[in-house]
Amino acid sequence: MSTAERVAYFNGAIVPESQVLVSFRDRSFKYGDGVFDMTRTFGGRIFKLREHLERFARSLKYVGIDPGVSMDELAAISEEVVARNLPLLPEGSDYWVGQRVSRGVDVVGGDFYQNSGPNLIVECTPLPLKARAHLYRDGIDVIFPSVQRIPPECLSPNVKSHNYLNLIMGDLEVRSYNPNAWSLLLDTRGFLAEGTGSNIFLVKDGALYTPKEQYVLAGVSRETVLELAEQLKLTVIEDDLTPYNAYTADEAFITSTSFCICPVHSFNNKVVADGRVPGPVTKRLTDAYVDLVDFDFVEQYLQQLH
Amino acid sequence: MSTAERVAYFNGAIVPESQVLVSFRDRSFKYGDGVFDMTRTFGGRIFKLREHLERFARSLKYVGIDPGVSMDELAAISEEVVARNLPLLPEGSDYWVGQRVSRGVDVVGGDFYQNSGPNLIVECTPLPLKARAHLYRDGIDVIFPSVQRIPPECLSPNVKSHNYLNLIMGDLEVRSYNPNAWSLLLDTRGFLAEGTGSNIFLVKDGALYTPKEQYVLAGVSRETVLELAEQLKLTVIEDDLTPYNAYTADEAFITSTSFCICPVHSFNNKVVADGRVPGPVTKRLTDAYVDLVDFDFVEQYLQQLH
Amino acid sequence: MSTAERVAYFNGAIVPESQVLVSFRDRSFKYGDGVFDMTRTFGGRIFKLREHLERFARSLKYVGIDPGVSMDELAAISEEVVARNLPLLPEGSDYWVGQRVSRGVDVVGGDFYQNSGPNLIVECTPLPLKARAHLYRDGIDVIFPSVQRIPPECLSPNVKSHNYLNLIMGDLEVRSYNPNAWSLLLDTRGFLAEGTGSNIFLVKDGALYTPKEQYVLAGVSRETVLELAEQLKLTVIEDDLTPYNAYTADEAFITSTSFCICPVHSFNNKVVADGRVPGPVTKRLTDAYVDLVDFDFVEQYLQQLH
Amino acid sequence: MSTAERVAYFNGAIVPESQVLVSFRDRSFKYGDGVFDMTRTFGGRIFKLREHLERFARSLKYVGIDPGVSMDELAAISEEVVARNLPLLPEGSDYWVGQRVSRGVDVVGGDFYQNSGPNLIVECTPLPLKARAHLYRDGIDVIFPSVQRIPPECLSPNVKSHNYLNLIMGDLEVRSYNPNAWSLLLDTRGFLAEGTGSNIFLVKDGALYTPKEQYVLAGVSRETVLELAEQLKLTVIEDDLTPYNAYTADEAFITSTSFCICPVHSFNNKVVADGRVPGPVTKRLTDAYVDLVDFDFVEQYLQQLH
Amino acid sequence: MSTAERVAYFNGAIVPESQVLVSFRDRSFKYGDGVFDMTRTFGGRIFKLREHLERFARSLKYVGIDPGVSMDELAAISEEVVARNLPLLPEGSDYWVGQRVSRGVDVVGGDFYQNSGPNLIVECTPLPLKARAHLYRDGIDVIFPSVQRIPPECLSPNVKSHNYLNLIMGDLEVRSYNPNAWSLLLDTRGFLAEGTGSNIFLVKDGALYTPKEQYVLAGVSRETVLELAEQLKLTVIEDDLTPYNAYTADEAFITSTSFCICPVHSFNNKVVADGRVPGPVTKRLTDAYVDLVDFDFVEQYLQQLH
Amino acid sequence: MSTAERVAYFNGAIVPESQVLVSFRDRSFKYGDGVFDMTRTFGGRIFKLREHLERFARSLKYVGIDPGVSMDELAAISEEVVARNLPLLPEGSDYWVGQRVSRGVDVVGGDFYQNSGPNLIVECTPLPLKARAHLYRDGIDVIFPSVQRIPPECLSPNVKSHNYLNLIMGDLEVRSYNPNAWSLLLDTRGFLAEGTGSNIFLVKDGALYTPKEQYVLAGVSRETVLELAEQLKLTVIEDDLTPYNAYTADEAFITSTSFCICPVHSFNNKVVADGRVPGPVTKRLTDAYVDLVDFDFVEQYLQQLH
Repeated sequence: MSTAERVAYFNGAIVPESQVLVSFRDRSFKYGDGVFDMTRTFGGRIFKLREHLERFARSLKYVGIDPGVSMDELAAISEEVVARNLPLLPEGSDYWVGQRVSRGVDVVGGDFYQNSGPNLIVECTPLPLKARAHLYRDGIDVIFPSVQRIPPECLSPNVKSHNYLNLIMGDLEVRSYNPNAWSLLLDTRGFLAEGTGSNIFLVKDGALYTPKEQYVLAGVSRETVLELAEQLKLTVIEDDLTPYNAYTADEAFITSTSFCICPVHSFNNKVVADGRVPGPVTKRLTDAYVDLVDFDFVEQYLQQLH
Repeated sequence: MSTAERVAYFNGAIVPESQVLVSFRDRSFKYGDGVFDMTRTFGGRIFKLREHLERFARSLKYVGIDPGVSMDELAAISEEVVARNLPLLPEGSDYWVGQRVSRGVDVVGGDFYQNSGPNLIVECTPLPLKARAHLYRDGIDVIFPSVQRIPPECLSPNVKSHNYLNLIMGDLEVRSYNPNAWSLLLDTRGFLAEGTGSNIFLVKDGALYTPKEQYVLAGVSRETVLELAEQLKLTVIEDDLTPYNAYTADEAFITSTSFCICPVHSFNNKVVADGRVPGPVTKRLTDAYVDLVDFDFVEQYLQQLH
Repeated sequence: MSTAERVAYFNGAIVPESQVLVSFRDRSFKYGDGVFDMTRTFGGRIFKLREHLERFARSLKYVGIDPGVSMDELAAISEEVVARNLPLLPEGSDYWVGQRVSRGVDVVGGDFYQNSGPNLIVECTPLPLKARAHLYRDGIDVIFPSVQRIPPECLSPNVKSHNYLNLIMGDLEVRSYNPNAWSLLLDTRGFLAEGTGSNIFLVKDGALYTPKEQYVLAGVSRETVLELAEQLKLTVIEDDLTPYNAYTADEAFITSTSFCICPVHSFNNKVVADGRVPGPVTKRLTDAYVDLVDFDFVEQYLQQLH
Repeated sequence: MSTAERVAYFNGAIVPESQVLVSFRDRSFKYGDGVFDMTRTFGGRIFKLREHLERFARSLKYVGIDPGVSMDELAAISEEVVARNLPLLPEGSDYWVGQRVSRGVDVVGGDFYQNSGPNLIVECTPLPLKARAHLYRDGIDVIFPSVQRIPPECLSPNVKSHNYLNLIMGDLEVRSYNPNAWSLLLDTRGFLAEGTGSNIFLVKDGALYTPKEQYVLAGVSRETVLELAEQLKLTVIEDDLTPYNAYTADEAFITSTSFCICPVHSFNNKVVADGRVPGPVTKRLTDAYVDLVDFDFVEQYLQQLH
Repeated sequence: MSTAERVAYFNGAIVPESQVLVSFRDRSFKYGDGVFDMTRTFGGRIFKLREHLERFARSLKYVGIDPGVSMDELAAISEEVVARNLPLLPEGSDYWVGQRVSRGVDVVGGDFYQNSGPNLIVECTPLPLKARAHLYRDGIDVIFPSVQRIPPECLSPNVKSHNYLNLIMGDLEVRSYNPNAWSLLLDTRGFLAEGTGSNIFLVKDGALYTPKEQYVLAGVSRETVLELAEQLKLTVIEDDLTPYNAYTADEAFITSTSFCICPVHSFNNKVVADGRVPGPVTKRLTDAYVDLVDFDFVEQYLQQLH
Repeated sequence: MSTAERVAYFNGAIVPESQVLVSFRDRSFKYGDGVFDMTRTFGGRIFKLREHLERFARSLKYVGIDPGVSMDELAAISEEVVARNLPLLPEGSDYWVGQRVSRGVDVVGGDFYQNSGPNLIVECTPLPLKARAHLYRDGIDVIFPSVQRIPPECLSPNVKSHNYLNLIMGDLEVRSYNPNAWSLLLDTRGFLAEGTGSNIFLVKDGALYTPKEQYVLAGVSRETVLELAEQLKLTVIEDDLTPYNAYTADEAFITSTSFCICPVHSFNNKVVADGRVPGPVTKRLTDAYVDLVDFDFVEQYLQQLH
């Protein structure tokens, strides 16, 4: 195997990524009938792998897929895949580490749910540091698209599934207005929900606000921020948040696996406070996050600007 | 190329199906970020290919994917793929003929929407005649699951996308009660919507009722039935239909590309009328459908029972 | 009066049950235009009669019925009825004790609300211990029907009225799938609501979750569990709970006047955790409940299995 | 049997009304777990008995109760009960004729649905002509209460069940503002639904509007008006009607079994048009109704004013 | 009075516009507690004044304001105001003609509804032909903002009131993305509603679609188009329209008093069909509109481009 | 300037109120396109001016209006206006002090948002003490109208705008039933929202309940009560409150700038508890409010009864 190519785990073996190919009859290709989870490394070390795999296990239970391996085995595989790929990681960069499973490949002529059994993949992807670096400097311009987030009575937003078209439609709508803007979908009741793989936080009068878990994916970064806020003695309120709350917030930031914490500059082109980022509470939480992971991810992003 | 294997069109070439493989970074595998359409053959002849491709074009526009070929070219490709696969079709059977396109394979380290461009596939699948034959004899037992159909403000049900998890969750819920039952999701308002790839019709006092297009995929078979009903001078009403309407209907049937028309035996275990299938209006429409396609698809299914 | 027949209070007198007959023009027979409350005995002693009668008083105020007696008088009557019926109680069994009032008997030819004044009944019913005993051994299989719980803008679920058809429709739907399953209705927003006379609790990471009072009858058993949880220093959260929360819970149980606490085995055929019941938190709460009422109701049920 | 008392059919026998008594354990008394239907006589002749019994059969199917007699038998019973009671009908008056069935009397100690089998009653009630006569002279003052009509996803409004508390709460709210006002509930979407046993019609620019069947009981009088309107070449539109539509209507009227047609004077104290009743279209429909039933029900009411 | 200033009717007199001043205690200034209507002239002749005043009368009834003049008097006043202002109309231009009434000026220290009685204004405003001319050449770029249209259960969209903030918030959101874009609000169910003072039409397969009157102001231009469509034998369907319907329409146009008919170029930056405007059906309707009013309003706009 | 007339600030100058006149083209007159805030004096001293101006600033940000002055300047202006008007204040009375701004006067022929820039007014109004005095003696009779409060997805109820028609429609509906009753709108989900400029509180078992900020204007008096409750060690719960909660409350009261705290006597004519006002918790909060503002506003109202 050439050292020039990353490897991935695929149904029992670690192989070059170019060999991780699935049939067009794979149910995840045809129906998005799969789930995944995704963590990142900091300086090459995987962050909160256990928490991610616990969520992965819940996603699997919800969709009724048995991946055929235990979460402990999957943790070991994930560590192995990262270890094998670390030599290929560009200087100063880090990896997303993802576990993906589809329900299987449909059997021709069979019942709709007759299939080959799960396709399981564990893979690494270098973070898009350069593409996002400016967001740490300038803050994110968030736009609420008109398309609304799928409600929990239809498909649980707590499940990290391979059905992303709703979020993608929001992205495409927002990008047609401003290619650099970030989509944040409102839920079907009109409250702030989430963006693609990201959670929103508002700061008002020193307290921290974020949408309730019923309506969004409970991100591990979101959870990390909630824990850090508790340590910093900040009041944290999970609540229904309105566009009014966003427009009149003192500060705002986005969390995601790749971002950790990234400040928001505006909502629907209404600048948050005086527009300077990050605000003081965002800064404190970011510093605490950096301390927790013992890695300056902000600096990691910003150095891509040079 | 061996004659023992079906072929498919894949990005410009016709190749054995086993060579139609996509990367695990394909956006349709990861996000269901793709659309498709699906027609069938009757005695080897493709049915209403143009109507299916027109719908495919609308789906593509909605999700903002350019497949790189015109619908005319796609029609020719579809005909070619069927022609090449006809020799492999089992006696008495027929094909599903599908066009599928994903937005592309994600570029590592790039922006979320940077990708390789579309993966386009045209493929044939033998219909699952045997697995479904008993439904023509006994009628379908329909169950309304508790999970609700995604509403149009979140993702248009008119788009035949690769995001099927909502429908799949309904199927799995219903199958856990009765492995042979058919899931029919209610919409978020509580009205009858649709099942996986299928539409519902009720007959009451000689008139035909079916849910409104805003809430369901406007199936080509559904459209065909509406046209046949007009020819038969039946009153047709597209309306919000309640479980009460289903329970008290005189007859009911499901339409889908593979089914064409298949009678319903019960809703939530309440038997429709006296339980005998098909009812007279269903029979007239089925006969007209057989005439239209000049092929007895009911007989095709039923002969699988022997 | 024969000792072989239970007695009940009926509009001022204690009479044999067979003499408690109401006209077909009684508004509760015709319209369910009445309210009730229901407690149980433990070893013959009535449990939390005052709390039940306070709720009964609130139900009466909501529907605008004056029962013609004070809650203190009703307490005395209830004690009297139980005392008179205790000799008839089978060894090892216990009573439901109910207060029921209808608005009255319609006056023929009068205005729609002209009536005879309230019919008031206080009655005892032996608990269905045998029919439900297996649920303590195996856990309850809970199913969410497609019919949704009536929302508070239409009729307050906090009122224990004689209008149960909504809950009954849920029961009948679920029983048609599995005669032993227990219906738990979702509310019109898709969150867990309640079953017929029963509340649901989930346990996750050691904390206790139950739906908010706005959407369910605030059961006295539910209230008792909330108090016991506080004593046991458990975190208790009244919140909107999703099917996802149910599927991924560590434990779950149902509370009701007759059940007190009974463990859940599965939701929609997804087994809770490893399927063993009761889980540790459920067990602790059950033990505390047994201590509080100084009566082992679990043993009372289980001995019916022999 | 004394000729001074009306008789009713009760589980196989015709008996004096005072002997039609049900146990307090009857499920319709306890839960409103029953259904009914109700027609009226005109000059002693039963109106559209067949249509009412067909609806009764649909209600029975929805709630899953088997009354133990056929609709043909029930028709004969109904005719018999009326015939036996005609001698007792006051001069100039008429009867409501009702069929009522409860699921049965609960079995003590049994499963929740174990019961004695249905209680079936067929009964006559003199119409409250005097109490309502002034409404034909002055028109009805309609008020929309704040309580909303139960939506079809919870309990079908098409079923004439013994669960009337939602409608009763509306009545009581409205009567607390004005004892003579008539409650018309809005549905959960804010559109006009129905009152207790009554449907609403608006007239605008010569066309007739009434709420859609999905949200209201499809009254037989409503159906009769729709048929008469067709004969009179009036445009009829079943649609979602707003309070704005009501306030700005040219005319409005209520239909019900007892009213047939009765004009509306105001909605929420906004007088309809110039306040004179009946308006011309209402008058034409009323005259046609009188012709159809060959009986002047308006005169029947109005003569009670003397 | 100088001939250099337009005049307006103000509470009984025709005065220079600069003298039409209202107190800051006027309820329309403080609460938007007023209603209005607005027509336009074609070549100086008022269009459908009667229809506009009939709608004005309905708005007045809904909000319970008596303007103190009859609609006939108001018609005469409107004609008079136009006649007096015609000499001031720029060559080639035309007027908006508006009737506005506020509930009155609040009485200090009084009850909240004690006021001076209505302030009534009839006024002329030259149409903004130049500002909008390019829209006839290029088509309108329509964007759906995230803010949703107020639903009829809160405030009837059929009433042309002085409460426009909901529509204004939509405009401001859309203009922040693209200063030339036109806001079209979705309703709270996610269907196309209306823009500020404008209605939307879609054309698909030769048929004309527009949102239902329940959710939008029934514009007189909209009504005119519906009449013209009938004359042209076009199928017209008032229905719930989705963003999908907009994206996949063959043509689309906006109607308003000032626009009459103006083609749409794109929805959310998805170009309608091939982007050329006007489409053939739009063109036919525009020509018919021009014929009806006997005035080429398109040319009137387009000549402003030179 | 005559001392007989109050003065107001108007765009830079303090002038007699009669000179504060706006054009009929002012956007707040035409569209309610303005925002305001309103505090009161106690014995001539302005209460919580800073808090009111902070809310005013948030309202301005939401609607995108720049008033052209800072909140500090506006505070000084407000103080000045009060000081100038104090000599005119009747003995024993007090002032409302309001800041109002409209977006400006529309430019004729311009784009819809081209305007003259903001009209800014600061004004004083004597409180309507006499008209409301009886409410402190008897308690307020609250009625829930059928019209529902505009939801936050359409227009934020947190913004104190000049669009009051929704609240006014509720008032007019309720006053048509009882001229002295107070309207309290339910939100679109059926929960208690707010009345015109007023918030609702319920007391149950010693705890204080009030609707959540997402659905109502967060009144400064409401905020003051929340602070006082904390000082008095009362449990305070912001939650969704149902009509059931209102009917069965132990006490209830309304807060508003003018009322501060005023007890409720009934909801929809159901008397709260035994009907005596104020209840003990209401009394404690009222006394604490009087202490806080160092002024007996209850006595101020009540003395108007003599």
